[in-house]
Amino acid sequence: MAMRVTLKEVAKLAGVSYQTVSKVLNKSTQVSKETELRIMEAVRMLGYRPNQIARNMRTQRTNMVGYSWEPSSPDQVNTILDQFLQSMAQAAEQAGYHLLCFPHHSGDEMLAAYTDLIDTNRVDGFVISSVDYDDPRVALLQERQFPFIAFGRSNPELHFPYVDVDGAAGMYMATEHLINLGHRRIAALAWPQASRVGQNRMDGYLKALRTAGIEPKEGWIARGDGNYAFGFQAAQTWLKMPVAERPSAIVAFNDAMAVGAMRAIQLSGLQVGRDIAVTGFDDAPMVQYLSPPLTTIRQPTWDIGQRVMSSLLAILDGTLLDDPQVLVEPQLIIRQSSTLTAG
Amino acid sequence: MAMRVTLKEVAKLAGVSYQTVSKVLNKSTQVSKETELRIMEAVRMLGYRPNQIARNMRTQRTNMVGYSWEPSSPDQVNTILDQFLQSMAQAAEQAGYHLLCFPHHSGDEMLAAYTDLIDTNRVDGFVISSVDYDDPRVALLQERQFPFIAFGRSNPELHFPYVDVDGAAGMYMATEHLINLGHRRIAALAWPQASRVGQNRMDGYLKALRTAGIEPKEGWIARGDGNYAFGFQAAQTWLKMPVAERPSAIVAFNDAMAVGAMRAIQLSGLQVGRDIAVTGFDDAPMVQYLSPPLTTIRQPTWDIGQRVMSSLLAILDGTLLDDPQVLVEPQLIIRQSSTLTAG
Repeated sequence: MAMRVTLKEVAKLAGVSYQTVSKVLNKSTQVSKETELRIMEAVRMLGYRPNQIARNMRTQRTNMVGYSWEPSSPDQVNTILDQFLQSMAQAAEQAGYHLLCFPHHSGDEMLAAYTDLIDTNRVDGFVISSVDYDDPRVALLQERQFPFIAFGRSNPELHFPYVDVDGAAGMYMATEHLINLGHRRIAALAWPQASRVGQNRMDGYLKALRTAGIEPKEGWIARGDGNYAFGFQAAQTWLKMPVAERPSAIVAFNDAMAVGAMRAIQLSGLQVGRDIAVTGFDDAPMVQYLSPPLTTIRQPTWDIGQRVMSSLLAILDGTLLDDPQVLVEPQLIIRQSSTLTAG
Repeated sequence: MAMRVTLKEVAKLAGVSYQTVSKVLNKSTQVSKETELRIMEAVRMLGYRPNQIARNMRTQRTNMVGYSWEPSSPDQVNTILDQFLQSMAQAAEQAGYHLLCFPHHSGDEMLAAYTDLIDTNRVDGFVISSVDYDDPRVALLQERQFPFIAFGRSNPELHFPYVDVDGAAGMYMATEHLINLGHRRIAALAWPQASRVGQNRMDGYLKALRTAGIEPKEGWIARGDGNYAFGFQAAQTWLKMPVAERPSAIVAFNDAMAVGAMRAIQLSGLQVGRDIAVTGFDDAPMVQYLSPPLTTIRQPTWDIGQRVMSSLLAILDGTLLDDPQVLVEPQLIIRQSSTLTAG
């Protein structure tokens, strides 16, 4: 069960007043080095989390949770946004909270939007998504001791609460599915090296190959923008290879690249699922209606929204989370883009 | 130019105090029938809008605009949600406002959610969407004299500010495009009679036919759920008709039904765009990648979001809108699902 550590308990253990602990942790007063060390030791021993302080210090609850997300490019659709927002908003409403949605900004303006909402006391906490390595929002919110939770991970050494899809597990499932169908030359339509999500998915792909005793080849991995055009071009390159050497299957890190690859295969006169198998990742609503329908990986979006919001609300209540870092399993959806081969 | 009528001007004309006008309009005090009539006459003469009162009376601005939307069914995707929210949030932020997103409820609970946000002073106004005939939200917000704007229309006799896509113009364009390609037997995959949006689109379809001297036939119109399965089934029914009588083209009121019809046509051994032309409505991101790519109607989503929010912010500022009811033109996107015939 979750338990709650109060500021009073920290004060008692450190042998100082509640106000002193609060001020020291908020860096709003100077005390002796010795007192500060005693307080920090008490914080560590009791597992008191700093963002409780921000919570306690704020004079007025807003009952608002801030959320902003990266917009999709015009030829793509954010297939989980509707359900993710509805799920979070529903979980929030049950606790008397609402979502404050603010627009996405790039560069320095992104942090300014977060800082402004904190400084003007517009929200009690944030949900952040599209988290990448060394995400500056994590640094900002940790420095401000402001409550937040991420949908997504960052560098392993950064400690903060998150809920994320196990992308490695998803890509492992897709690759293993193709291996079980007899494929040995499985290419990957991947994201750039710098992508944190892409690295997780790459790990799953490589692990599935190695588990099956298949040594991945450099030429089988194409890294690009994650759109239809990139999938199309990369597949065309593979299709020019000699039949005995070219990939017999392609795993894509998202549906858009998979659909691009399918089109290239079809234009070359080959049949998707019979001559070359293709899998995606997302289960975008339209991909079940493609010819052939796309085998893909589905994320449990509603569940993620509920977990993200309930964990953040627990943090706002000063509750210690049993498991602040949660990975949820995606699901393999098998359709004909991979299984015509087997039939 | 927009002009603003103040409560003080109403009070002056009625010969009573500012407070009396305010209280009478908010029904928080009893005055003589004669005084009340004098006040109401002044309100009418000056064109003072009741929702200014709600604005003036509220002790505290929240700088929040409430928005809720109907979630898509699992096999569909709300293709405009991302851009619509980003656009509204951006326009709001520039004026110091933010979006408060709350979850969709059905039946009585829907109105309760709006009432609760008003009563707890959580928002200054609302954007409502998926507006239908006799929408109970319109009645509630008008009775509460609470500022709102709609993305969508309702009954013609209901007067409230809205921005809407001219669905009749969109469907006219699609139907006219097919007529110009030589089609005379053009079937429609439509929505139920009760759908307000569906009625607008039907008007455009019928007008285009009649303008070309084509008498629409009952059997050419199929009304259903607006999903893939319905489009598939309705097209299968048409495909069973004798070749000389069956529709040579199908206009769908959304992309999902168009994609279902395309699949039925392909499974029957015919070629979409050559044997039977198909058009959609939405320009969902994936439909450009179908085989063949889908001819469809695109809504100017970003522009709609900007207009909706800027109009609501003007209302909140007590500005009279030049044009409180705006129709924006959609755009015909021609692709091969209709034009292989012409080639």
